[in-house]
Amino acid sequence: MLEKTTRMNYLYDFYHSLLTPKQRSYMSLYYLDDFSLGEIAEEYEVSRQAVYDNIKRTEAMLEEYEAKLLLFEKFQQRQDILKKLSDLLKTQPFATEQGNHLISELEKLD
Amino acid sequence: MLEKTTRMNYLYDFYHSLLTPKQRSYMSLYYLDDFSLGEIAEEYEVSRQAVYDNIKRTEAMLEEYEAKLLLFEKFQQRQDILKKLSDLLKTQPFATEQGNHLISELEKLD
Repeated sequence: MLEKTTRMNYLYDFYHSLLTPKQRSYMSLYYLDDFSLGEIAEEYEVSRQAVYDNIKRTEAMLEEYEAKLLLFEKFQQRQDILKKLSDLLKTQPFATEQGNHLISELEKLD
Repeated sequence: MLEKTTRMNYLYDFYHSLLTPKQRSYMSLYYLDDFSLGEIAEEYEVSRQAVYDNIKRTEAMLEEYEAKLLLFEKFQQRQDILKKLSDLLKTQPFATEQGNHLISELEKLD
């Protein structure tokens, strides 16, 4: 199990386009910029509890999207396979450069 | 531009988990099983217009999800790159079998 912050960062990365602007703001301040709940509450002139509730609901939504679409899980599986492909290509002197270029193109798509 | 039915089949494949059970039923009868609107209406004892409206709304939702998450677009890009990787591996006698196995693993994840 990944540390929760790391997991939330990944899930946010995959699914932030499905969140509302307010959810995106709170989540990115809390998880990416490391603001406290109190600091976010002050910034938006709402209660600390309101920020907390919103973030908890958003975390649950991100987990629901992941349960349905598995984008993060597939990303991890793909990374494992690409690592093996990359190792394989290292053993092929004439294909290594070209192969690595294709693999980096695949990684950009994740 | 893909033919609409083909595109809807792909979008349904990627995003059906985000639809309601009723949306899934109508869409899969209409697009996968080639039922007419009238046949679906009869099956569910609703008006033809109700089925039509539901399907139109669902199509729009699928396009919205694709605009946000780009799963189908990335799938197509990934397929293009995997084809190139596969061609490259064909030129490497000692890596072909192992490489093709890895590529087929990647394709299963799409």
